[in-house]
Amino acid sequence: MRRYILTITCPDRVGIVAAVTGLIAGHGGSVLEAAQHGDLQSGRFFLRIEIVADSLPSGFGPAELAAAFEPVATEFDMEWHLSDTERRKRVVLLASKEDHCVADLLYRWRAGELECDVPCVISNHEDLRGLVEWHGVRFRCVPVPAGADPDAKSAVFGEIDRILEHERADVVVLARYMQILPPAFCAARPGRIINIHHSFLPSFAGARPYHQAFERGVKLIGATCHYVTAELDEGPIIEQDTRRIDHGDSADELRRVGRDVERSVLARGLRWHLEDRVLLNGNKTVVFP
Amino acid sequence: MRRYILTITCPDRVGIVAAVTGLIAGHGGSVLEAAQHGDLQSGRFFLRIEIVADSLPSGFGPAELAAAFEPVATEFDMEWHLSDTERRKRVVLLASKEDHCVADLLYRWRAGELECDVPCVISNHEDLRGLVEWHGVRFRCVPVPAGADPDAKSAVFGEIDRILEHERADVVVLARYMQILPPAFCAARPGRIINIHHSFLPSFAGARPYHQAFERGVKLIGATCHYVTAELDEGPIIEQDTRRIDHGDSADELRRVGRDVERSVLARGLRWHLEDRVLLNGNKTVVFP
Amino acid sequence: MRRYILTITCPDRVGIVAAVTGLIAGHGGSVLEAAQHGDLQSGRFFLRIEIVADSLPSGFGPAELAAAFEPVATEFDMEWHLSDTERRKRVVLLASKEDHCVADLLYRWRAGELECDVPCVISNHEDLRGLVEWHGVRFRCVPVPAGADPDAKSAVFGEIDRILEHERADVVVLARYMQILPPAFCAARPGRIINIHHSFLPSFAGARPYHQAFERGVKLIGATCHYVTAELDEGPIIEQDTRRIDHGDSADELRRVGRDVERSVLARGLRWHLEDRVLLNGNKTVVFP
Amino acid sequence: MRRYILTITCPDRVGIVAAVTGLIAGHGGSVLEAAQHGDLQSGRFFLRIEIVADSLPSGFGPAELAAAFEPVATEFDMEWHLSDTERRKRVVLLASKEDHCVADLLYRWRAGELECDVPCVISNHEDLRGLVEWHGVRFRCVPVPAGADPDAKSAVFGEIDRILEHERADVVVLARYMQILPPAFCAARPGRIINIHHSFLPSFAGARPYHQAFERGVKLIGATCHYVTAELDEGPIIEQDTRRIDHGDSADELRRVGRDVERSVLARGLRWHLEDRVLLNGNKTVVFP
Repeated sequence: MRRYILTITCPDRVGIVAAVTGLIAGHGGSVLEAAQHGDLQSGRFFLRIEIVADSLPSGFGPAELAAAFEPVATEFDMEWHLSDTERRKRVVLLASKEDHCVADLLYRWRAGELECDVPCVISNHEDLRGLVEWHGVRFRCVPVPAGADPDAKSAVFGEIDRILEHERADVVVLARYMQILPPAFCAARPGRIINIHHSFLPSFAGARPYHQAFERGVKLIGATCHYVTAELDEGPIIEQDTRRIDHGDSADELRRVGRDVERSVLARGLRWHLEDRVLLNGNKTVVFP
Repeated sequence: MRRYILTITCPDRVGIVAAVTGLIAGHGGSVLEAAQHGDLQSGRFFLRIEIVADSLPSGFGPAELAAAFEPVATEFDMEWHLSDTERRKRVVLLASKEDHCVADLLYRWRAGELECDVPCVISNHEDLRGLVEWHGVRFRCVPVPAGADPDAKSAVFGEIDRILEHERADVVVLARYMQILPPAFCAARPGRIINIHHSFLPSFAGARPYHQAFERGVKLIGATCHYVTAELDEGPIIEQDTRRIDHGDSADELRRVGRDVERSVLARGLRWHLEDRVLLNGNKTVVFP
Repeated sequence: MRRYILTITCPDRVGIVAAVTGLIAGHGGSVLEAAQHGDLQSGRFFLRIEIVADSLPSGFGPAELAAAFEPVATEFDMEWHLSDTERRKRVVLLASKEDHCVADLLYRWRAGELECDVPCVISNHEDLRGLVEWHGVRFRCVPVPAGADPDAKSAVFGEIDRILEHERADVVVLARYMQILPPAFCAARPGRIINIHHSFLPSFAGARPYHQAFERGVKLIGATCHYVTAELDEGPIIEQDTRRIDHGDSADELRRVGRDVERSVLARGLRWHLEDRVLLNGNKTVVFP
Repeated sequence: MRRYILTITCPDRVGIVAAVTGLIAGHGGSVLEAAQHGDLQSGRFFLRIEIVADSLPSGFGPAELAAAFEPVATEFDMEWHLSDTERRKRVVLLASKEDHCVADLLYRWRAGELECDVPCVISNHEDLRGLVEWHGVRFRCVPVPAGADPDAKSAVFGEIDRILEHERADVVVLARYMQILPPAFCAARPGRIINIHHSFLPSFAGARPYHQAFERGVKLIGATCHYVTAELDEGPIIEQDTRRIDHGDSADELRRVGRDVERSVLARGLRWHLEDRVLLNGNKTVVFP
């Protein structure tokens, strides 16, 4: 069923929902789902509404809805976005050698669990080519020379930039991509790069979190799906989860258990992003699952 | 902060939220929280809105809000209810000898986690008197003679009826009350008697669920908080949860682990009920947590 | 690291562990892991020991260890089994059209998470051929004619029998195989056929458990991995887990969430079986994870 | 049922279990439970055995068992401890104003879930006196003057020391005691002071973890039960758990949810300690639950 998804962020005040739902109802629009949140700390209001496309008059499509909505948006000083489920988001995955996240996302995509197009996977290694191409997805290898100096790195990400442009990527998913992105690359895509970190952030930020967890003797390990910002491991958190471990689990076994948490946390986070269920609130997120 | 909580159930159609929020905004009402659900199967719509009392004009209290709302309710054929957080619900607990649920609810009530009055605990045994009275709550013992015939039982529940009437009980919580309620007693209080069943229903309905679970060799045990109907263990489910067990756990250990699940599931279910977060949808519930 | 895994079941009495570990230590055997359980109800004792193969004298292999162990086994009336991790178990999957369990198991097998050989997948449909063959695994389609009479069904399972024989299958995994197995087929493989049931048994046994769960309005759904016996959905439970759902989830969404539980529960159950961590105790299991 | 619990730590080598169980079996001792762990990293071996007291010859009590065990302990260079379940550990709680952990532990103790004596609760405030004394437990108030200088603090902990001595405390539980212990006080009781920290360590160490969690926007909060060492929040972790929260939860609501995790994590950790299920392994723990 085709739907339009309207997401709104604005200063909180009386009458926002009445104005938005009044406008939609005035055009006969049927609301399938709606969720809202008022943040008492920041004074910001967050709203997400799914409208059944066919309930609007024929000829009244996304452009007409947006135009009709403009005055309301201006009145309430809204940042807003209107998605059309018929225009699927284009997702490009970045990966290295580890395949568990890529395999899981491609499986779910093929099974219809993720409403998006996946035109391409980019990796700095050749290892995942077979897996990716079997799913009918282009595989592009952009190697990162060991000990690459800033210029070399800059060339690498210039190439990745060009591929993303060419593929018209809406979202970039770091599916265990083991390279640090240049700050400018991140800054150009706020809220559009999703990473999976293999720890329960802020615990064990940085490299080798399973070894850190093993050394500290924690009783649960976790994973964190977050938007990437220029500050490593500090971006807004979308989703997290944990799994129980015990003294008998080696660092290798933590990795095995951890792969399962990573896969499910990343898949949930990405699905919510694709369905416009994640709104940014400063360095935090509002998630309407 | 004083709030009015409006809960609505009605046939789903265009314009419900616009009409309700429009009315509230028209009186300057500030919405703190709102949640909605359209049930595609039954075609029913469910809405819960929390309004900041002080945002409405002075002199415009619950009665005035209800009167103003009446035309909207009629237009959309709504079943609705308006609560005022200053008028706390009155909860009476029924218990037998086991104290874990009573102790937990009284603790949470005293700690301010449950917004209600607890005027009285009724039990068919004397065991819990000390615990209850230490919390400053009346304790009423209404024994049920062993092997009571229907007439004797009827007298018992007549007495309980009178106490509930006298205490002006809004909600009855069966906190491990080990007697079966007469159908008429249940029918008189639809959606107002809450039970905690010590299994993950519909598994192990009936008596001694931990023994049934032990015999079957399940790897998780659970608890179910549900509204009581005339059909035993078949009422609408409010909340459930499970805990992991293993082959080394005896039936006694299942009971110990189970007590923890029961306490937390019942406390969550009751809190949601007290905050008007649970709406009935046939034999199911809509919960806006 | 090559290991011998000894599993033992016998009547409980004094001296079992001393006798077994004494024999192992007497040959210089190093124990990597050991776990035991005495069942007070049945009076049975369960033991699992992993021995580092290289710690035993050269020339003292599984056959020699078994021979040395025989007198102890006789003395204590033991049922016992000795596995050698170098002799990987051979697993044949049975599936129908749904691919989530097959895809997950093949992924984990290829990733080295499951220590076994997977020579073949058998299905009553052609749908999974591409997926299976991409993993380098033989795919055998054995159709079951719609409305097959007993003779036709008997022919089908005769064919499956022959394939299992030919592939020297140690374990059969029903990875969402939508056919009921003939009792004789089950009886011939006690503790060697593993099924994944898409509910938290004993809730919602039988067909269409997600629809049953949706109709009942439960707040958690689950999955159960169990050994298959002649009595449908009644075999010994190996592993179970649950996931939270809510009133907003359609029966389709329950299926999506449920697929994730099924995959992880089946993978854990199979891994434990492959590592000889599951011992039968009547219609229950002892699991040493 | 009276049991002797033997816990052992020693360098890992062939024959430990055979020697220990051989000795026990030689005296006719019946083993109720046993668990072991070999730590590949440190090369240390950990063993816990529960022996049914009545299975040993009459007159062969803990002292005789210990004497008989001494040669084995020497041979294998063991650190070991023998507990007698008839000699219940004495637990003293330290608390401040918050009552949720104290109330929960006293409830469980009274309900028979914690096998120990609780002679006394010490607090730096008077608030919990009524609760504690209702349970028949002595309440001692040892105030800590605001802005106490080192000398004043030293006097406070001298007084606490004397009370612990007088009460013959085996274990000290910091049940939300909001004072930092002097290093010497900690050093004198290695593995005998248990703290509950209201975060999933190492995340949000230090003060006000729920505020830190709220500010960071995490999607789960947790609690950590650990042994106290001179280094704040860095001691060996016994148990941890997490609960899901969302953007709608205020810092106050995190505290409410958090109290439930704290209570259950502390109760589990303490129960395991009381049953000698927690063995120290450097700055980590081995837990045989």
